[in-house]
Amino acid sequence: MSHFEFKCTKCFKSHKADPQTLKCGTCSGTLSVKYDDSKRPVAIMVGGGTLEMPIPLSSLSEYLSLGEGSTPVVSMPNISAMLETAIYAKLEFMNPTGSFKDRGTAMMISALKSKNVSEIVEDSSGNAGASVSAYATRAGMKAHIFAPLSAPQTKLNQIKIYGSVLHAIDGSRDETTEAAEKFVENKSLVYASHNLSPFFVEGTKTFGYEIFNDFDREIPENIVVPVGNGSLYLGIWKALEELKEKRLIKTLPKMHCIQAENVNPIASNKAWSKSEIKPTVAGGIAVGSPPRKSEVQSVLRQSGGTAYSVTEASIVKWQIKLAKHEGLFCEPTSAAAFAGLENLIHKNQINKNERVLIPITGSGLKDVFPE
Amino acid sequence: MSHFEFKCTKCFKSHKADPQTLKCGTCSGTLSVKYDDSKRPVAIMVGGGTLEMPIPLSSLSEYLSLGEGSTPVVSMPNISAMLETAIYAKLEFMNPTGSFKDRGTAMMISALKSKNVSEIVEDSSGNAGASVSAYATRAGMKAHIFAPLSAPQTKLNQIKIYGSVLHAIDGSRDETTEAAEKFVENKSLVYASHNLSPFFVEGTKTFGYEIFNDFDREIPENIVVPVGNGSLYLGIWKALEELKEKRLIKTLPKMHCIQAENVNPIASNKAWSKSEIKPTVAGGIAVGSPPRKSEVQSVLRQSGGTAYSVTEASIVKWQIKLAKHEGLFCEPTSAAAFAGLENLIHKNQINKNERVLIPITGSGLKDVFPE
Repeated sequence: MSHFEFKCTKCFKSHKADPQTLKCGTCSGTLSVKYDDSKRPVAIMVGGGTLEMPIPLSSLSEYLSLGEGSTPVVSMPNISAMLETAIYAKLEFMNPTGSFKDRGTAMMISALKSKNVSEIVEDSSGNAGASVSAYATRAGMKAHIFAPLSAPQTKLNQIKIYGSVLHAIDGSRDETTEAAEKFVENKSLVYASHNLSPFFVEGTKTFGYEIFNDFDREIPENIVVPVGNGSLYLGIWKALEELKEKRLIKTLPKMHCIQAENVNPIASNKAWSKSEIKPTVAGGIAVGSPPRKSEVQSVLRQSGGTAYSVTEASIVKWQIKLAKHEGLFCEPTSAAAFAGLENLIHKNQINKNERVLIPITGSGLKDVFPE
Repeated sequence: MSHFEFKCTKCFKSHKADPQTLKCGTCSGTLSVKYDDSKRPVAIMVGGGTLEMPIPLSSLSEYLSLGEGSTPVVSMPNISAMLETAIYAKLEFMNPTGSFKDRGTAMMISALKSKNVSEIVEDSSGNAGASVSAYATRAGMKAHIFAPLSAPQTKLNQIKIYGSVLHAIDGSRDETTEAAEKFVENKSLVYASHNLSPFFVEGTKTFGYEIFNDFDREIPENIVVPVGNGSLYLGIWKALEELKEKRLIKTLPKMHCIQAENVNPIASNKAWSKSEIKPTVAGGIAVGSPPRKSEVQSVLRQSGGTAYSVTEASIVKWQIKLAKHEGLFCEPTSAAAFAGLENLIHKNQINKNERVLIPITGSGLKDVFPE
């Protein structure tokens, strides 16, 4: 018997943890990894090597790393002064392929590799595609990456350079997913969807464990995350819940969720049809139908966080502010979180005497440069 | 009295450690920081927080960080098998601006800031310029960055995004330096040359301290570095010499130096005139007259390393190999080291039973993509 299984996030039914199982067979709900507390877990050391984080692999030797994680946290003296709030950034663009996705991909590809999967399909706005392409190459797997043709050329090129087959789709982010799903069905291949795979969230959890040490056990009161499918948002929360269960932390932060006004299914709490979705510079969060939407909403409620959506102009304004005031060059998707932060402070959703942590999720080098 | 001074690398004369002093007033030799062992040094913790590295600042609070350093070391299973040698890469492109330069820049800008310098001039093939632009912004300094007009557009854009004034020079890397020097003279500004500043090398030393822990005190027998001006090469050596003086390591590695055939003043041991320099894809090491050339040659002799130069075709071949076999996407300059390694192994300059460490100095995202 394995030390973990999958559990449906909707009907709570248990399933065998097969890397090819992406939804509950009973109710089609999304799945999450559940560890069996009675069994000794396989664990990696996180948070400066002081914390054991259980992982969904049979042995440590199965974990395939390209050096992801352990990203620095920096203070933001200039922007903190502007917004009269103590703001910290965790530099997720300092991951091997330039985005936080590498945390999730490392775990997902390790799990697939351990089951001898040799060919996979993934769909992405660009960052997850580049990440999966790099780790699949490292693992000796063939990967088909579906991405919107409208994604930044650098992201499309990056997917190809690692050797994967790029399928550039002339359509929206959601239509890209549909094309990938059709391809999986027609070719009988394994769908390594970072949005559905429960292994992916297990990888992003390392972010949550790391901040325990980054902040000397005093996790900031607010974490503000740009959310498309929510894999980082959910991973952070799951990690912090585990730390609370182990009585290593007492309270949980408010988890705020930032989206672009042009596609905000979580902030607006409505389904977005293809025709309603407007283009956004924040391509990484341009998702009309996130499969884990209700999970994100549940964390919003539990944590007392706010979902907020921001204008295109405010996203670009903050991308430039971060570069020109703090020397940090991020992609627009990451800047959206700061645009949101500014509003949350103005609306008193974030108290000025509380600290704020924001992950800078992706590198500005991968996107078009602002004018 | 300060706990450090400058010392000429040629005539060994001592000078006051002024950030504006870049050459020996007596013989025009390059300068190096020399610590006074009788005084208590200001030090930062490096190598997983276990080693004290003395720094040329009056107090720790003067050290301005954007999260540089502490980069991961990864094994290279596929390329190691190809070359039948144990090869490790330290991922220097996982620095805040995408290259190892951030290590040196952090120290140099901190030193300039501590002396209340408010406006600086720098010249660069691109990476150091972007790095100085980011850190100068963070420090609230105005920066003029000179770079060749022929540098990759992404690097030129990156210099601008952080807010510095870009001076794009229609000429070679060496002509870019001349233009910067003229501008410094005409405007009476401070020349923050990463190639001349002794503070810059003090920053790159962190690489050498880190590998002490990365390899559990057993530094690999060979380190292969792409060398233009040699700021990383010299920093690694200085760090390892300090560790040896402290009796923390017993032996020093062979320090191999890789250049492009089209501009190889160190490997060929001759001066390159402007008209002789041919273009190279490895823009980061396209330097005809490196000011610290004799320092690099001295380390080559002392360490028993080899200087070797590589063809354009072999550089591009290795850039693609690294991406397609290891999932690591570097700029051509970094790939040159692997092209050199292949030759050093074939010529028995590197023994197959010895380990090899190579810094992957810069991100592939900043350069033109290979076809």
